[in-house]
Amino acid sequence: MNDTTPVFDRVAIIGIGLIGSSLARAMQANSIASYITCGDKSQDYCDKAMELGIVNEAYTDLGKAVNNADLIILCVPVGAMKSVAEEISADLKKGAIITDVGSVKEAVINDVQSRIPADVHLVPAHPIAGAEKSGPEAGIANLFHNRWCIVTPSLNTEIKAVEKVTEFWERCGSMIEIMDPKHHDMVLGITSHLPHLIAYTIVGTAADLENDTKAEVIKYSASGFRDFTRIAASDPTMWRDVFLNNKESVLDILQRFTEDLTELQKAIRQGDGETLYNKFFATRNIRQQIIDIGQADYPKNTKFFSKDD
Amino acid sequence: MNDTTPVFDRVAIIGIGLIGSSLARAMQANSIASYITCGDKSQDYCDKAMELGIVNEAYTDLGKAVNNADLIILCVPVGAMKSVAEEISADLKKGAIITDVGSVKEAVINDVQSRIPADVHLVPAHPIAGAEKSGPEAGIANLFHNRWCIVTPSLNTEIKAVEKVTEFWERCGSMIEIMDPKHHDMVLGITSHLPHLIAYTIVGTAADLENDTKAEVIKYSASGFRDFTRIAASDPTMWRDVFLNNKESVLDILQRFTEDLTELQKAIRQGDGETLYNKFFATRNIRQQIIDIGQADYPKNTKFFSKDD
Repeated sequence: MNDTTPVFDRVAIIGIGLIGSSLARAMQANSIASYITCGDKSQDYCDKAMELGIVNEAYTDLGKAVNNADLIILCVPVGAMKSVAEEISADLKKGAIITDVGSVKEAVINDVQSRIPADVHLVPAHPIAGAEKSGPEAGIANLFHNRWCIVTPSLNTEIKAVEKVTEFWERCGSMIEIMDPKHHDMVLGITSHLPHLIAYTIVGTAADLENDTKAEVIKYSASGFRDFTRIAASDPTMWRDVFLNNKESVLDILQRFTEDLTELQKAIRQGDGETLYNKFFATRNIRQQIIDIGQADYPKNTKFFSKDD
Repeated sequence: MNDTTPVFDRVAIIGIGLIGSSLARAMQANSIASYITCGDKSQDYCDKAMELGIVNEAYTDLGKAVNNADLIILCVPVGAMKSVAEEISADLKKGAIITDVGSVKEAVINDVQSRIPADVHLVPAHPIAGAEKSGPEAGIANLFHNRWCIVTPSLNTEIKAVEKVTEFWERCGSMIEIMDPKHHDMVLGITSHLPHLIAYTIVGTAADLENDTKAEVIKYSASGFRDFTRIAASDPTMWRDVFLNNKESVLDILQRFTEDLTELQKAIRQGDGETLYNKFFATRNIRQQIIDIGQADYPKNTKFFSKDD
């Protein structure tokens, strides 16, 4: 796509961390906005964003950052959405569009919708993309390229606003899916929130081991555990907020997980090899489907399978 | 290291799957053996190994495969060690060395030691390496390069035999650690066996969802879940055997994991953000240590951290 017409004239990014700064870069690289401002409570982050040349203006006063903006993108932890909405509300331009990048959608809608003027359009979104590093320097322009972005408008959101937001994400390289916010929270509860909770737990269990054993666990961290440590190194504030704000879905899927784990535990205790084999065999099908649709880090059509650590 | 003197004259590989065929290739690439035979119950695998030119002889009769061999490497699932030991016992050369690549060590020693002649030396080993694909075609010569190989001899194993086996693995590119078998099973229970059990469980939980939701989980499998599916696609026979043969360590560490998970579950239910934050923050330290010792897929000295899916 070589479209170089800006989608928005003036865009304000609130929160210029990894995601916010990646969006600034993506907008520059794809001529999506004529003018980019950012607002961040950290003077250091504001200074860095200016130094890096990824925004035109940067303010610790969020109201100044959104002044006259046509699109405002909230790139703060889910738990901070409420206070940010309150802080910028009076400075929002009539007819402006607000979107966000939060990993939970129903809670964000509840927190933001009631705090913004009726003539401002809220179109929540969740780009399924991330990286291990943080801060304005960590951003990358193609972070959203070929990644899903799930947009969760409500039934009475003006269609024009939804179209503008989807166009914005498409120009960032994303694939778009429209979804009900509650359903989004359930699906992501399984694909992302529960895996993070489990990874935090298992790495935490290892962290509680006596020092000698812990040193060995680190030394011989094979693929299994090592992958978990990467997930468990995610931002603690962001993830605290995810679990506090998607409580219902997470507790529901956690309950199912615990039941399934108890079943395997019983099979191990009883030496029931048949149950173990059948359960372990069934999961391959899911992996193959992920490879088939090209979501794994493998070329499509890869057929595989076997031994590990 | 440019040593081209063979470590062993004649080596027999029992089980020519991913690991066995990788060893055959590593031996060829590094001139570790003068002559390589393999034994595998699958005629198809034997034919493939010969076609690929990675062994000099291949037999479905395991006794023929080990005939006159100086080193015998058992590359079969842990649960098959017992019957393989029985089958080859009468054909083992006096003074030969047997090693294996099993992920569990105490059970393998119990299963093999009593079944082989007293004049044959057992030096168990566990290369911490693997790949997702299986079969003789999937092997790679440098699979063990810069990977740990944990060697678990008993106190009365002849030191010469231990030295020959460590030399063998060093020439394959591995780093060697000598460890007590029981301790190995505990450490690997944490770094590898529990993560696999958890991954199998969570992917199994997803597999039990209704079809529409399952399709979405596959479609939006973000880093968390996608990593788990890779782990959960490991060989079911191998992993069934691991859990059946490392029952005690796995059940012990699973108990601790469950306690920790229950604590986080309670924090979510009660909206206790402080506990969640503190737990999520503590795990970063483990990740940083893994990066510091160069075991992560990052360059050393990487400092990082943040947002994710």
